[in-house]
Amino acid sequence: MNYLTDEKLTILGSAGAIGSNMVQAALTMRLTSNVAMLDPYDPGNEGAAEEIYHCSFPGANVTWTSSAEEALTGASYIISSGGAPRKEGMTREDLLKGNAEIAAQLGKDVKRYCPDAKFLVVIFNPADITGLVALIHSGLDPSRVATLAALDSTRLQTKLSQHFGVPQSEVTGCRTYGGHGEMMAVFASTARVGDRPLSDLIGTDELTLEQWEEIKAHTRQGGKRIIQLRGRSSFQSPAHHSVLMTRSVIDGRRYPWPAGRYIDSEEAGYRQTLMALETTIDQNGVHGSIPEGTEQEMADLRASYEHLTKLRDEVIGMGVIPPLDQWSSVNPNL
Amino acid sequence: MNYLTDEKLTILGSAGAIGSNMVQAALTMRLTSNVAMLDPYDPGNEGAAEEIYHCSFPGANVTWTSSAEEALTGASYIISSGGAPRKEGMTREDLLKGNAEIAAQLGKDVKRYCPDAKFLVVIFNPADITGLVALIHSGLDPSRVATLAALDSTRLQTKLSQHFGVPQSEVTGCRTYGGHGEMMAVFASTARVGDRPLSDLIGTDELTLEQWEEIKAHTRQGGKRIIQLRGRSSFQSPAHHSVLMTRSVIDGRRYPWPAGRYIDSEEAGYRQTLMALETTIDQNGVHGSIPEGTEQEMADLRASYEHLTKLRDEVIGMGVIPPLDQWSSVNPNL
Repeated sequence: MNYLTDEKLTILGSAGAIGSNMVQAALTMRLTSNVAMLDPYDPGNEGAAEEIYHCSFPGANVTWTSSAEEALTGASYIISSGGAPRKEGMTREDLLKGNAEIAAQLGKDVKRYCPDAKFLVVIFNPADITGLVALIHSGLDPSRVATLAALDSTRLQTKLSQHFGVPQSEVTGCRTYGGHGEMMAVFASTARVGDRPLSDLIGTDELTLEQWEEIKAHTRQGGKRIIQLRGRSSFQSPAHHSVLMTRSVIDGRRYPWPAGRYIDSEEAGYRQTLMALETTIDQNGVHGSIPEGTEQEMADLRASYEHLTKLRDEVIGMGVIPPLDQWSSVNPNL
Repeated sequence: MNYLTDEKLTILGSAGAIGSNMVQAALTMRLTSNVAMLDPYDPGNEGAAEEIYHCSFPGANVTWTSSAEEALTGASYIISSGGAPRKEGMTREDLLKGNAEIAAQLGKDVKRYCPDAKFLVVIFNPADITGLVALIHSGLDPSRVATLAALDSTRLQTKLSQHFGVPQSEVTGCRTYGGHGEMMAVFASTARVGDRPLSDLIGTDELTLEQWEEIKAHTRQGGKRIIQLRGRSSFQSPAHHSVLMTRSVIDGRRYPWPAGRYIDSEEAGYRQTLMALETTIDQNGVHGSIPEGTEQEMADLRASYEHLTKLRDEVIGMGVIPPLDQWSSVNPNL
């Protein structure tokens, strides 16, 4: 059986529902024959690895460990689902600090054990912040670090296809940008339903303004809705997309959704932040452009950006990342 | 994006961990663009479907429902993970009766809504019995019904590769036959480690008789070990294999592991039973031969068969399937 590469892919959080799904998805898509499963919880990680062994992917070399050194040494590709979930009694700030610290350790481990990694995908929340923190500490070029941002756009696509009663694939150009959270900017001007621009439909009987507001709210709450329905957070869709993103770096196949990437553009006025923008992922990593939208959409994106800079500054205040003017001393690529 | 077919695949139990993984695996492997998700638990099924929508498989048409009529009408391929788990206080007989009744209903639904189905894979335990019950009531040709039996063989392969410290793919010909349970027949004579027959290694310093007995016990207990390690039953490996089995019927690609199939051979002395045998799955469904092994292995297979006939006769006693001489009145293909 052929794999796209034999380079090492390391999955962090592999004992969990997302991480173990990533391992299965990566091997099913034949990304690489060489997968390392890293998780601090040994019995669960062994159990997840045993399940993968029982799949018996021909020619696969799958290892499991709780040692970051063992898992990350020589890794070319890394996907991390390994954050901590929000627990009873935790404040938002507790969660932010806890996961930012996990992201900082991830970045430091990458710098120490696989400084030549070709791609790092960070998916644990708040992903725009954890991705940024990991990037700073990793020393990687910003084109080599991306966060999962697609699910907001695919939730918008899903909801529009359900509203209009058309196949999902006929709803194209669905885009949310900025942060992956309540403050995301939901764009209408990029989307089409069949061959009709969504903007032409909003405010008509086919899609009233009120219905459009509901769809935007639903898009922003898409993750919560999965928890209500399934009794657990999304795990299949984040695994699927983060593996697709990684595949695009391996073989250059187009990844058709926005990803979170680092932006520091004086011209655009987006400085030292990581957020969802119009992106391409290919063998050169993640790159792209500032999206174009209506005045309102661009204002929403600006507001989302400003919200993210506040979170970023909180994390600076916590001492997890250095002040803005000292980032280049930790990561010369910034 | 291309799929192998547009024919309908129906997954039963799609709200659960195994069933929802099957849907993702089937679409990732591009089996078909047309997937129906059937589960009595609506919120969980909707949540699982939403996750699949958020994956946004291009061109896929995925529906979810709690109506067997809606899900099964027009289905060409069916995979059922939809049994009930053993609950506190349930006896083995309670579980057998409950799942046999679910299998009988599955068979009747197939007969009613998709009598021309090309393949039905049954994976809920005891699979040799539930598969047999579903076959009888479905009216399908026996070549069109198979049960998942591979995991015992892949667990044997896994354990041997770990014992000898060789890549899993270098351990070949691992085979367990008969029932998928404690009474399975673990064959040594078919297996090789690299280019060396396993039989030549058993009883040497490389694999003492005691170690081989431990490996056989581990193989028989492989499912329990996953529960100990993960705190839940296997769900990734059964999903992966049942989708692979179905793929082989769609495109004829070789499925390299044993499957459970119906056998009624006066010559071989295996009558009106379903169990793991040496099998091929291709566009003609499942077929194969009686395995050949040592005297002891064949005696183990015979004992496993006899155990299964007792379970079968219990289910006849429960009234879930008719007496042996009346099967053909329910299913003329038997």
